[in-house]
Amino acid sequence: MKHWILIVATALLALPAGAVVPQTSLPGADSPTIQPDRSITFKLKAPDARTVQVAGGDGLGAGPFNMTRGPEGVWTVTTPPAVPGFHYYWFLLDGVRVNDPASRTYIGYGLETSGIEVPETGADYYAISNVPHGSVREQWYFSKSTDQWRHALVYTPPGYDQNPKTRYPVLLLQHGRGEDETGWSRQGKAQFILDNLIAAGKAVPMIVVMDRGYASKELNPATLDGLRKVFSAFEEVVIHELIPTIDASYRTLPDRDHRAMAGLSMGGMQTLFITLHHPEYFAYVASLSGPVVPDMRGARAIEAGFHDPFDSQTAFEGAFADVTGFNRKFKLFWLGVGTQEPGVFRDSIGRAVTSLQGEGVKLVYFESPGTAHEWQTWRRDLNDLVPRLFR
Amino acid sequence: MKHWILIVATALLALPAGAVVPQTSLPGADSPTIQPDRSITFKLKAPDARTVQVAGGDGLGAGPFNMTRGPEGVWTVTTPPAVPGFHYYWFLLDGVRVNDPASRTYIGYGLETSGIEVPETGADYYAISNVPHGSVREQWYFSKSTDQWRHALVYTPPGYDQNPKTRYPVLLLQHGRGEDETGWSRQGKAQFILDNLIAAGKAVPMIVVMDRGYASKELNPATLDGLRKVFSAFEEVVIHELIPTIDASYRTLPDRDHRAMAGLSMGGMQTLFITLHHPEYFAYVASLSGPVVPDMRGARAIEAGFHDPFDSQTAFEGAFADVTGFNRKFKLFWLGVGTQEPGVFRDSIGRAVTSLQGEGVKLVYFESPGTAHEWQTWRRDLNDLVPRLFR
Repeated sequence: MKHWILIVATALLALPAGAVVPQTSLPGADSPTIQPDRSITFKLKAPDARTVQVAGGDGLGAGPFNMTRGPEGVWTVTTPPAVPGFHYYWFLLDGVRVNDPASRTYIGYGLETSGIEVPETGADYYAISNVPHGSVREQWYFSKSTDQWRHALVYTPPGYDQNPKTRYPVLLLQHGRGEDETGWSRQGKAQFILDNLIAAGKAVPMIVVMDRGYASKELNPATLDGLRKVFSAFEEVVIHELIPTIDASYRTLPDRDHRAMAGLSMGGMQTLFITLHHPEYFAYVASLSGPVVPDMRGARAIEAGFHDPFDSQTAFEGAFADVTGFNRKFKLFWLGVGTQEPGVFRDSIGRAVTSLQGEGVKLVYFESPGTAHEWQTWRRDLNDLVPRLFR
Repeated sequence: MKHWILIVATALLALPAGAVVPQTSLPGADSPTIQPDRSITFKLKAPDARTVQVAGGDGLGAGPFNMTRGPEGVWTVTTPPAVPGFHYYWFLLDGVRVNDPASRTYIGYGLETSGIEVPETGADYYAISNVPHGSVREQWYFSKSTDQWRHALVYTPPGYDQNPKTRYPVLLLQHGRGEDETGWSRQGKAQFILDNLIAAGKAVPMIVVMDRGYASKELNPATLDGLRKVFSAFEEVVIHELIPTIDASYRTLPDRDHRAMAGLSMGGMQTLFITLHHPEYFAYVASLSGPVVPDMRGARAIEAGFHDPFDSQTAFEGAFADVTGFNRKFKLFWLGVGTQEPGVFRDSIGRAVTSLQGEGVKLVYFESPGTAHEWQTWRRDLNDLVPRLFR
């Protein structure tokens, strides 16, 4: 009978006044709990452990936070008020990184990693609501260039099935390093952001393609030249395999005026790498918290490239040198960053914005107040970006 | 730079001859490894641990298996040859159940649980292959009876988008206890089984609806009467909310002759509970490894009910009493079990089959040789079942 019985018991336990168990917890779990001031109480039962800590993404605070052993070997800690949004976290159980059995896991840092959703008061733009919903679909396609089946997720807007003659513009939307094609829907809630914007008449109904941003076995090159090779393999997939697959499988408007690309962090770097090299495919471009490395073809160490000055004449092989041409070609050039992000992101993005605006390049610069290099920044980014597309 | 660097390094490590890293491992992981005899080597780095064990589903062997500490605090063990298929597993790190950082996790036992896919020689019916693919779509719908947004996955067959006037029959397909709506696609690979059968001309193109089998906060009742209440809440969702949602959202053939329900384990119990009570909705019924409890309305303990004799006159409120009527009404009544499943499954299913066949009830009984109460049984079941539907 172990199959039947080995289920976590559901208990409606008494929580402190105003405390909530987040939507990232598994059904029946009573942990973690988030207090009204956004402090979070974590717990883990580990009777024989000598030390237990909790650590996680920037928005959770500095950490790791030491936990204290209580009755029956249950370790607990209450961490300082967290930034709203989605954060990855984990326990260090006698030094071994393990997940919280109470929470769902998400692909982050290349691993299945516990997540916690900290509600933001008044922010309902990424909540599921009583509006028509699009659909997120799994799309498998065989990639000859990488000799592998690839898996993408595709959002089709409300009405897609009911209007079989209507064609739609396409946004390619990429995740960050260590995440995968599920990030934008599971962590980012992109489908609800789109649903809500479309229902409010603030966005054009569109198809959103969320592909896996890896096309090479090498994931971690040390030099810009190595990164170029990795990104080039993905570029090959996007231009010659993904876009044709999507145009063949969905009712798209298959031209550059109806195609956008956006990505976060590494996905933002990939977006600039691919779109500025292939303006014939894209009229709308957005990099969300993507470090702006002006010479993506360089052979220097990545660390150095991230701190290079931005020269609008030479950056990205001269893509911005002809300002008038650039402004005519691209209907939107969008850059964003959170105010609490580390310097490597803020500085390189800031240098590019200052330089490009100084030269007269038309761009949108968006700052997310108070948020770090985490999903709340990118949800806000998407909510600002999507209404600007395909107008 | 920690966001950038904190990635598992990808290494093409030397594996023992013929050993493979399974498809359930995360990209870049070199563990676990499966040897040609299906013995499995697990490892976990835990320098300060005092004991580390690995344990898992029946197909992995008895366990837990003690692991041995090696250089740099890496614990390893090679377990006996496993049954082919998908198995849940976990480590016991100083007694605390934790997942393997090298593997993907799946919802099992109500928890995020590591999984390992052990290849079965010659079995390609559940592999992705070069045939037209259907699509698995997320379907959100608001349930008034439970006051919640519910999440289902819906497989639409190849050609669904290209033939906007074609309507399709519908199979409702339920997971087991402790699993959720993602089980049939992630663990079961139902979409590839359907793709392959449809491509081979062995199955009718159909829509497959995989809903979440919980509709009540109480998950673990101790009595049959409690189980009836839990199942009734789900029955209300299926009949009055799910089926209307699917019929409104997809191009279905919305009548009983084109609607089937099947489920595994608890899902099989739910299938019998719902379909035998609502024959006006279903013409095809299948219970996969579902314990057959003849009196689902009883007030006894579940343990007792699982061992009740099967009386074809009274079972399921007399649903089988009129044999001729039953045989006319249901176009398929399918029961299956794996030969290595525990007695609680085999015995109750065997009693029902013997009794019903003795009375002249037309049914299909399918045994999966050598497999336990695990996904390989249910993949084989689905592969046998689907070609029999809607003929």
